Amino acid sequence: MTKRKIVLAFSGGLDTSYALVDFREKGWDVVTANVDTGGLHSGEADVVRARAEELGAVEHHVVDARAELYDRVITYAIKANYLRNGAYPSCVGAERLIQAEKVVQVALAVGADAVAHGSTGAGADHVRYDAVIRALAPHLEIVTPIRDERLTREGETDFLRSRGYEVSEKVKLYSINEGLIGTSIGGEETYGSWEYLPESAWTYTKSIDAAPEKGVELLISFEKGEVVSAATAAGDALPSENNFDILSALNVLGGEHGVGRGIHMGSTMVGNLARVGFEAPGMLILIAAHRELEKLVLSNRQQATKATLGNTYGDLLHEAVYFDPIMDDFRAFLDSSQTRVTGTVRVLLHKGNIVLLGSRSPHSLLDAATRSGVVYGHGSSLWTGEQARAFAHMYSVPGAIQRAAAHPAE
Amino acid sequence: MTKRKIVLAFSGGLDTSYALVDFREKGWDVVTANVDTGGLHSGEADVVRARAEELGAVEHHVVDARAELYDRVITYAIKANYLRNGAYPSCVGAERLIQAEKVVQVALAVGADAVAHGSTGAGADHVRYDAVIRALAPHLEIVTPIRDERLTREGETDFLRSRGYEVSEKVKLYSINEGLIGTSIGGEETYGSWEYLPESAWTYTKSIDAAPEKGVELLISFEKGEVVSAATAAGDALPSENNFDILSALNVLGGEHGVGRGIHMGSTMVGNLARVGFEAPGMLILIAAHRELEKLVLSNRQQATKATLGNTYGDLLHEAVYFDPIMDDFRAFLDSSQTRVTGTVRVLLHKGNIVLLGSRSPHSLLDAATRSGVVYGHGSSLWTGEQARAFAHMYSVPGAIQRAAAHPAE
Amino acid sequence: MTKRKIVLAFSGGLDTSYALVDFREKGWDVVTANVDTGGLHSGEADVVRARAEELGAVEHHVVDARAELYDRVITYAIKANYLRNGAYPSCVGAERLIQAEKVVQVALAVGADAVAHGSTGAGADHVRYDAVIRALAPHLEIVTPIRDERLTREGETDFLRSRGYEVSEKVKLYSINEGLIGTSIGGEETYGSWEYLPESAWTYTKSIDAAPEKGVELLISFEKGEVVSAATAAGDALPSENNFDILSALNVLGGEHGVGRGIHMGSTMVGNLARVGFEAPGMLILIAAHRELEKLVLSNRQQATKATLGNTYGDLLHEAVYFDPIMDDFRAFLDSSQTRVTGTVRVLLHKGNIVLLGSRSPHSLLDAATRSGVVYGHGSSLWTGEQARAFAHMYSVPGAIQRAAAHPAE
Amino acid sequence: MTKRKIVLAFSGGLDTSYALVDFREKGWDVVTANVDTGGLHSGEADVVRARAEELGAVEHHVVDARAELYDRVITYAIKANYLRNGAYPSCVGAERLIQAEKVVQVALAVGADAVAHGSTGAGADHVRYDAVIRALAPHLEIVTPIRDERLTREGETDFLRSRGYEVSEKVKLYSINEGLIGTSIGGEETYGSWEYLPESAWTYTKSIDAAPEKGVELLISFEKGEVVSAATAAGDALPSENNFDILSALNVLGGEHGVGRGIHMGSTMVGNLARVGFEAPGMLILIAAHRELEKLVLSNRQQATKATLGNTYGDLLHEAVYFDPIMDDFRAFLDSSQTRVTGTVRVLLHKGNIVLLGSRSPHSLLDAATRSGVVYGHGSSLWTGEQARAFAHMYSVPGAIQRAAAHPAE
Repeated sequence: MTKRKIVLAFSGGLDTSYALVDFREKGWDVVTANVDTGGLHSGEADVVRARAEELGAVEHHVVDARAELYDRVITYAIKANYLRNGAYPSCVGAERLIQAEKVVQVALAVGADAVAHGSTGAGADHVRYDAVIRALAPHLEIVTPIRDERLTREGETDFLRSRGYEVSEKVKLYSINEGLIGTSIGGEETYGSWEYLPESAWTYTKSIDAAPEKGVELLISFEKGEVVSAATAAGDALPSENNFDILSALNVLGGEHGVGRGIHMGSTMVGNLARVGFEAPGMLILIAAHRELEKLVLSNRQQATKATLGNTYGDLLHEAVYFDPIMDDFRAFLDSSQTRVTGTVRVLLHKGNIVLLGSRSPHSLLDAATRSGVVYGHGSSLWTGEQARAFAHMYSVPGAIQRAAAHPAE
Repeated sequence: MTKRKIVLAFSGGLDTSYALVDFREKGWDVVTANVDTGGLHSGEADVVRARAEELGAVEHHVVDARAELYDRVITYAIKANYLRNGAYPSCVGAERLIQAEKVVQVALAVGADAVAHGSTGAGADHVRYDAVIRALAPHLEIVTPIRDERLTREGETDFLRSRGYEVSEKVKLYSINEGLIGTSIGGEETYGSWEYLPESAWTYTKSIDAAPEKGVELLISFEKGEVVSAATAAGDALPSENNFDILSALNVLGGEHGVGRGIHMGSTMVGNLARVGFEAPGMLILIAAHRELEKLVLSNRQQATKATLGNTYGDLLHEAVYFDPIMDDFRAFLDSSQTRVTGTVRVLLHKGNIVLLGSRSPHSLLDAATRSGVVYGHGSSLWTGEQARAFAHMYSVPGAIQRAAAHPAE
Repeated sequence: MTKRKIVLAFSGGLDTSYALVDFREKGWDVVTANVDTGGLHSGEADVVRARAEELGAVEHHVVDARAELYDRVITYAIKANYLRNGAYPSCVGAERLIQAEKVVQVALAVGADAVAHGSTGAGADHVRYDAVIRALAPHLEIVTPIRDERLTREGETDFLRSRGYEVSEKVKLYSINEGLIGTSIGGEETYGSWEYLPESAWTYTKSIDAAPEKGVELLISFEKGEVVSAATAAGDALPSENNFDILSALNVLGGEHGVGRGIHMGSTMVGNLARVGFEAPGMLILIAAHRELEKLVLSNRQQATKATLGNTYGDLLHEAVYFDPIMDDFRAFLDSSQTRVTGTVRVLLHKGNIVLLGSRSPHSLLDAATRSGVVYGHGSSLWTGEQARAFAHMYSVPGAIQRAAAHPAE
Repeated sequence: MTKRKIVLAFSGGLDTSYALVDFREKGWDVVTANVDTGGLHSGEADVVRARAEELGAVEHHVVDARAELYDRVITYAIKANYLRNGAYPSCVGAERLIQAEKVVQVALAVGADAVAHGSTGAGADHVRYDAVIRALAPHLEIVTPIRDERLTREGETDFLRSRGYEVSEKVKLYSINEGLIGTSIGGEETYGSWEYLPESAWTYTKSIDAAPEKGVELLISFEKGEVVSAATAAGDALPSENNFDILSALNVLGGEHGVGRGIHMGSTMVGNLARVGFEAPGMLILIAAHRELEKLVLSNRQQATKATLGNTYGDLLHEAVYFDPIMDDFRAFLDSSQTRVTGTVRVLLHKGNIVLLGSRSPHSLLDAATRSGVVYGHGSSLWTGEQARAFAHMYSVPGAIQRAAAHPAE
């Protein structure tokens, strides 16, 4: 009789190492899948593979999902100018959805009977994983011992050691999650609301103090709302071979100038409040530049409607509402809104600040007014003094009526 | 026969000086009204009064409208976290409405036949003035030669000199408008979209370079959404005798640390795009701190709804929609939403940055979870692993149904 | 040792009859609570009490919650013009919340250890009950065998008969739920989407065919958005002793004229679609009349914003989001919006139709225009022909600029 | 020297007849354009042409814009379920925009120097005309004597008779405007808010009394949100050769059954309130049917977001915001939302009522649940009793926390 096969989303950490061995002992053939959404440093993929093999995986898959994450999630986050609670370039949530999709694809490819992930039940990641798996492959069993049994790290360590596997002694002070979009940092200070993260907790961004005295000016160009190039004012182009290269380069460059740190505080999809530090210079820079260009080319109504719909879109994605067809509708709206968002933005990164210096576009509304053919009177304006006066009169009519209606006895 | 009486909103500048003399020559008794919304420096009120008397005003009124501006406009801008186009603490618009109201009050008090203001027809101020006057006192004539006749500064200067009045030779490079909320700065660079204002154009904020190496940490306290006190972490309380004192002090302190500069680009109420620099450290600091406290105590739905309604409220006020009863409804919503917005926020001002260090409140949602009585299982959480698993299952139901509906043939 | 005490929401139906006996056998002292939200016909309360006593309740409480349901839920549904999915005066959902509150109050009054309700897990009622109980009295155990054990009606019947209790043989074709707001009707036809309910399924409304040839004209009066009186055009006043009397009378009168039937199809809070018939003449009439009056006195912005917020408010209430403070904020908005909603509406009920004949109010915007003091020109209008022309010019500016920006090469 | 050429939007009525002769006398070559948006009855086009020739037009153009009106305006009104103020299938506004476009096209084709229309300045039509002309052909002069000079009907009549032209003696009691979308009716009763239109004022719809005792059942089918066929349940297909034929046929059939009458009361784009009767059976039927189908296939979020965006879209179109690119974005959203809106709706027209009997679709969410693969437990449901209980627990967490935060001292 053939053994049943399970695909495990595998990071090489304690939880998924435990799960791998536990599943094997329970009689599964375990296939491990390591999905890269930008969090793997050079050489790490090999370390993870070696660990999977050491722990007894029958197959190990490495999936580079960065380009897809960029195309399907990040570009729309930029088009939407999405910052959760107005501040946080939602890091982890969207990555989990892509990771879950990739794990399902591996499971379907290898003909697995089940899918497993190591999420705890404390946060929202487990919901994201389950939501994707159940919609895409409802016949697959979902196996999640870390969540269901509320295992402790001590118990997992003892289990692995009892089977002869080494487990690092190092106790991490901060829980770090890295990805293309950003890095999240949780620890003692973020469990409450009063303390800020200490300098040692941040991973690669510089403090305002440590950032260089002289800032760097960038020219960032967009076509129909998508970043197409970036260069310093001095002429050094940022790499752009892969679609995510500019973002990655801005993470480094922004971090160097003290840009990108923050602490996010917001409700989870379960309804309790959580607080977490983050470093995301690239997203903050790109969204700031993109929004500035939009101010030059979009109508007021577009900007206001985009702000509301974009926030809703981003919040729903964060909350794993991935298969509601409204998400396609929002993307159709966002794509349409970007028709004219072509141009270049001047941005200064300096001591933690993102300063928007200027922008230009062939669709500039400032330029269009002078070309619009509605020039009037002695050619110096779009309207005459008398027209302005009449407009003010007409504009005051509704208010005057409203006030009269409020005081029927006057 | 008694002469007809006109009340002129008078700043002492060229336009209103011209108007005063012009009106007098046309047979009006001219009453001047100088409304202070925070733009008058020490001694300036006397200079304006002297000019009014020199030019022949029959009466001169000085109205200090700062406390009222704060109570009726600024507190709601903070409650709403209103930043026009996400960036600009709308300076001039709201001040004009209060100024117009005060001028109408003077006109009613002195029994005037007409009201005059010196706004041009190029921007939106003239509409704001007219909208207020016509609603509050529809029987008053509105006299606006600068707008209606599109007078030039040269023509006005010649007119005044021909009557023997001195006019300053100084040509200002930048058009500056100061007030409690902020200072706006227009000039050569802001007529296009590509250039940034030069260092010389800013009035009182320091550059990032010139700001002190060491930042200052503040504790800002709110009660039901209103700022009640502010002090440095070192214990120095900011003045708070008048309701607007903390804002004024933060303008100075923030400016000292390079905080508060920006360039706003947005559509006017007439529909063309405009760009203008601004300095508004105090409003930016208070809104940032207020929003951080809201994250600690408001539900997600409150924050999202407030963001949309608050933006609409602020935009409508900016657009002089002053008498639409929706404005009362928005304020009722905003007031209600602030019931729990009581607490203290830690803010660092440093080299142009407003860093939100932490916050606390008796209504903290972080603290409430542990007190909420829904503690479950072994007391370590609000739910068990099995409950989490079941929730993930239930949460995935709609998406799974949606996906099935999308693929009826599967 | 004293027995533990449980309060059971008791309707006298099969599920709660089973639960009562089951609890008693498991050693509980069972206190029954029968909460009237308009669904009890004359004499029914006594039948329910007798059944409770027969089945062994130690105490039986009857709570008349109609006035409170009206004041806390129905008035706001009218102020909000709330119809779920644009059609359904959400019947059952809000009643459950009030019922749950009343049951908790009984539990606290008698010092109970637990609360029980007979909801199944198929719909959303069980969530409504739990949400209220857990928030108001987190120390109380929640006991729900019908949901948790998925009991069948056959099993319950056998259980009761084996203990010697009679159970009616009558198999109901339709599941009916009556209340002040309306009656819901589920059955064979509503499980799918294609069939309409047969004539026999409706409970008290007449068909269009059976309705009288001659309709009845009503005058319905509101003060600040609340219904204060109603009378036929012939002068017969509807009863108004209790706050809910007019609604009750309109249910009867509307039903007589074929008004109030419909089939609601909408997502449950769990995310699956459900379809159910309803009869709710009174709510449909009052909301139609109220909305007509609002058109006479509210600004366009108020109506549009109310529509969006009112729908969100109603949907959240339907979804048991009862303790989110946003609900207070919405009510503050709604209350403020009703300041001028005073006046009378003429309504014709005729052969299933609610025809809005006319309306009047001291705050009528139609009347205010002529009193507004902005009358201009030869007194016949609010503006002159030249002003109209200038306004059209100014109004066309943004569109002309937008079109020029769209075609930079033209 | 060649004479200057003007294109006049010409209906054959008094205002445009006056204008034609007046222009001719002022030296223009007058080209008349008669744009049919569904208001021309059989033979009327010839009468209008004859009048234009009699009055001296150098050319007369007849433009059939019905198909274009349907494709560009009506289909989106249905996709958006747009009813102004929740009741009125905005008749006249959108037709004016199409008419203005067609007149501009004629003007460009004949090389005209100017465009003229006969709108008064009392309503909003003149703004619609100007907004379109100025954006599409800013070089064309706009000539509008009726608006600018506020001419009276008596003056126009005298003028025409003095030139020897006949003018009908008939004084119309009601101002009627017919089109594909509907017919609007203004008169004595609609100037105030209290009176209903008398039976004689309606043009082609029957009263409830006069409608047949027996209703007619229809099957209306949609593909991706567009009406593709309609037939009676008895099997008689409605004509569908032109895209607008079904709408036209439903206007007749609905009117026969007393469906489609109403009185609209709403703010104009100028800000004053107006009231007008309308007959629009076809649009009311199609929108009702379309919305019912959407309930079967769209997610709750889609329906709620569509309602808000659709209303905004319709209101903006009504208000002539035709060139704001937000309109393209709204259409992109609407088109995307219709992907699954394919199916058939059963509708009964009976004594003024539109009764929605049922609906079906391959994308039915009711059917999808059973196919979704998430069937669970003993196969009878999507979840177990324990899962339902756990969900209710989790769902109650946020409310319990909120309540705890509201009462910190408890």
